[in-house]
Amino acid sequence: MKITVWNEHIHERKNPEVQEIYPEGIHRALVKGLEPLLENAEFRTATLAEEDHGLKGEDLDSTDVLLWWGHLAHDQVSDEVLERVHNRVLHGMGLIVLHSAHLSRVFRRLMGTSCNLRWREADDRELLWTVNPQHPIAAGVEFPIELERHEMYGEFFDIPQPDELVFVSSFSGGEVFRSGCCFQRGKGRVFYFSPGHETYPVYRHPDVLKVLSNAVRWACQPEISKIETATSPNAPTDWWR
Amino acid sequence: MKITVWNEHIHERKNPEVQEIYPEGIHRALVKGLEPLLENAEFRTATLAEEDHGLKGEDLDSTDVLLWWGHLAHDQVSDEVLERVHNRVLHGMGLIVLHSAHLSRVFRRLMGTSCNLRWREADDRELLWTVNPQHPIAAGVEFPIELERHEMYGEFFDIPQPDELVFVSSFSGGEVFRSGCCFQRGKGRVFYFSPGHETYPVYRHPDVLKVLSNAVRWACQPEISKIETATSPNAPTDWWR
Amino acid sequence: MKITVWNEHIHERKNPEVQEIYPEGIHRALVKGLEPLLENAEFRTATLAEEDHGLKGEDLDSTDVLLWWGHLAHDQVSDEVLERVHNRVLHGMGLIVLHSAHLSRVFRRLMGTSCNLRWREADDRELLWTVNPQHPIAAGVEFPIELERHEMYGEFFDIPQPDELVFVSSFSGGEVFRSGCCFQRGKGRVFYFSPGHETYPVYRHPDVLKVLSNAVRWACQPEISKIETATSPNAPTDWWR
Amino acid sequence: MKITVWNEHIHERKNPEVQEIYPEGIHRALVKGLEPLLENAEFRTATLAEEDHGLKGEDLDSTDVLLWWGHLAHDQVSDEVLERVHNRVLHGMGLIVLHSAHLSRVFRRLMGTSCNLRWREADDRELLWTVNPQHPIAAGVEFPIELERHEMYGEFFDIPQPDELVFVSSFSGGEVFRSGCCFQRGKGRVFYFSPGHETYPVYRHPDVLKVLSNAVRWACQPEISKIETATSPNAPTDWWR
Repeated sequence: MKITVWNEHIHERKNPEVQEIYPEGIHRALVKGLEPLLENAEFRTATLAEEDHGLKGEDLDSTDVLLWWGHLAHDQVSDEVLERVHNRVLHGMGLIVLHSAHLSRVFRRLMGTSCNLRWREADDRELLWTVNPQHPIAAGVEFPIELERHEMYGEFFDIPQPDELVFVSSFSGGEVFRSGCCFQRGKGRVFYFSPGHETYPVYRHPDVLKVLSNAVRWACQPEISKIETATSPNAPTDWWR
Repeated sequence: MKITVWNEHIHERKNPEVQEIYPEGIHRALVKGLEPLLENAEFRTATLAEEDHGLKGEDLDSTDVLLWWGHLAHDQVSDEVLERVHNRVLHGMGLIVLHSAHLSRVFRRLMGTSCNLRWREADDRELLWTVNPQHPIAAGVEFPIELERHEMYGEFFDIPQPDELVFVSSFSGGEVFRSGCCFQRGKGRVFYFSPGHETYPVYRHPDVLKVLSNAVRWACQPEISKIETATSPNAPTDWWR
Repeated sequence: MKITVWNEHIHERKNPEVQEIYPEGIHRALVKGLEPLLENAEFRTATLAEEDHGLKGEDLDSTDVLLWWGHLAHDQVSDEVLERVHNRVLHGMGLIVLHSAHLSRVFRRLMGTSCNLRWREADDRELLWTVNPQHPIAAGVEFPIELERHEMYGEFFDIPQPDELVFVSSFSGGEVFRSGCCFQRGKGRVFYFSPGHETYPVYRHPDVLKVLSNAVRWACQPEISKIETATSPNAPTDWWR
Repeated sequence: MKITVWNEHIHERKNPEVQEIYPEGIHRALVKGLEPLLENAEFRTATLAEEDHGLKGEDLDSTDVLLWWGHLAHDQVSDEVLERVHNRVLHGMGLIVLHSAHLSRVFRRLMGTSCNLRWREADDRELLWTVNPQHPIAAGVEFPIELERHEMYGEFFDIPQPDELVFVSSFSGGEVFRSGCCFQRGKGRVFYFSPGHETYPVYRHPDVLKVLSNAVRWACQPEISKIETATSPNAPTDWWR
């Protein structure tokens, strides 16, 4: 299982508060947290500043699941990399979209909607409730998951109706949010998971890591169907024989 | 538009606290609240104690939308009436399932699951958030709807994934609940709406009534498809010509 | 109800066979066919060759439902018009996507997938079967609808799982296709309907017109929710009060 | 992985034509066909005539996936066994519902609808098309699967909208059918698969067996969530701490 963790990696270099929480960068913190939970997984990281944002064709072709964290610089992701990632998802690569990446180009491209939401930075307590207990992404996690302090993300969240809704959050302010959502797009599996604001050490929370490791396993599809989706043959009457 | 409001009508006769809130019974309170919002609607009521629970064949055949409130006596609803109501839903009658009727025989029959949930009577504040703003059932209601005090209903709510999720609630205790859920069953439309505990005057809340009147309009289908669902003809090869 | 019928209008001007079938253009044929079925509707048409493809901001702002037919020149639709149409759908305009417009920029933008499919031009007989009889788009149409000769469109059709599946087609060659699919995107309703190849007079078939008139009524939403989807306010704790 | 194959086992004992095709009974034919495809699986069979129809409490408690074939004697399945099987599905047992078992008590109980359909015995050729190529149940199967001769099952099929639609069939007569449908009910996974009429040797077709072995793996859930669905505790405010 080959996993690439992508991070725009700006907050951690510019904001002292974030630097203190994630001195190694969110991407490396995620690798460190996920490695013990995912046997037989190979990790690599990639960031915005690298050539091709660290996502050349061969990098993506050998990636089974891509995690994506971005916030300040969605618009700096190049058209070329956007196309490449989008295309790989449609051909079977798993994609885990994290927190503020709800506004990333690739997530909006896959959803077709604005992907907007309401938010507030006010140290709300967030509780994530499993609404689909038998879903593999919820396996073995606390019910509910408690984040003592987190950014509030609230409805209305402008996404298509998820194929499967796994988690719904409440916040101290009384808001709710569909915080764990599964989508099938082409041959790829996409999971949006809202925890992960840069000013809280959320990616060291054991249940958050448990969810993410479950999600990676769920999104990883070792065998990709050969049924073609990318061509329109002028099929002969009996082509299927 | 012909609407029947069904109520088991036990709490209001036995419990002084409930009697004070709904001296006329929940069924008549609902009619009183909905009448001004639904022009061209004819209302009738029916209760458990009546012959056939007030739901004879002709009563149901002439009903476009049935509202159902029950709590203490789900098991006193007869097999015959259960079959009749179920059958009418599959043939196109709308059904609005209210609050504790999540455990009613007809709702469990239509869902196929336990329909169980968590609950607490502790004067929680409930906020109902629209997660599908353009849904006709959410038209013109506050965002969120606030119930100052209500019984807590919490996840996990054991229902099939709703065809459309309209409202999600939060409670003072931090719980969440899928409080407004649409289901298509056969030719009938079913809406589950959780507000309505008997010890709070919820059915006089203008937004609750607005939701219910929207739901009645949504569930009412004046013309029923003639495509047969209840027979299995040994169809000839060209029967469709 | 204000309806705009958009057509790239190339086949009808270049291909004598198509010219004979639709001398007035597919857009005007659609208006002619739909007018008697939709009382109180105002129609206008728009084509690729017009300035802004006939879809200036004010044109779209006053459109309740847009029908879209395109085939040869998807890539000639400008970025600006694409953004404008997409944005209007997310804010509540209905969109009916016709036949080869499965590959239009706006449909692919809304779906997030390749929207590809298999096809064959071989005078197949197509039968469209209602799999959701009580859906308003299926009201009053034959079961099945028969198109004596039509282009074959076959699975796998690379779209997200539809929110509601209304029609499934079979073809003489044995293929099947999800030929009538509903999607909610933002506040807008989208219906994809596959009949309409330019070399067959499909848009004069009474059942096809019946479906389209039903779809226009279904997609038309006179009142648009005021719940904001396009902004992310840093909501104060009690903003909802 | 413990698999129980249930069969009413009447046709094979009474009808010489069926006896010739399945002299050992459909249940044993299924075991024979599936064994080579499912390593580490233990099979047992059960039939209507056995005590408790071969489905005592301990039999079901130790079953991970139950396959169910029935046709003539749905109404002879006892209330007790119905409750037991239903309950086990809600608590996580997988269920594969085969062919004419669309009218079995347990499937109708789980669906809440009539589960009726149209049918014809006329040696139609059936083609099963994958409409969800990356679904694990479709892995490695031909596209389409061809059954040279089979009973026609046609729409409208009165089921709730499937959570995932995997296969759609066409028939020589031009009909279509949603022939492979996934449902989540409680903690259990349910797959309906229409091939399997008793007068054709369908359960020896390699692709049918491939689909069934995939479905068994998909429906088998080794670890069941501890989140309770069957009780309604009067939860204290901070019960989740």
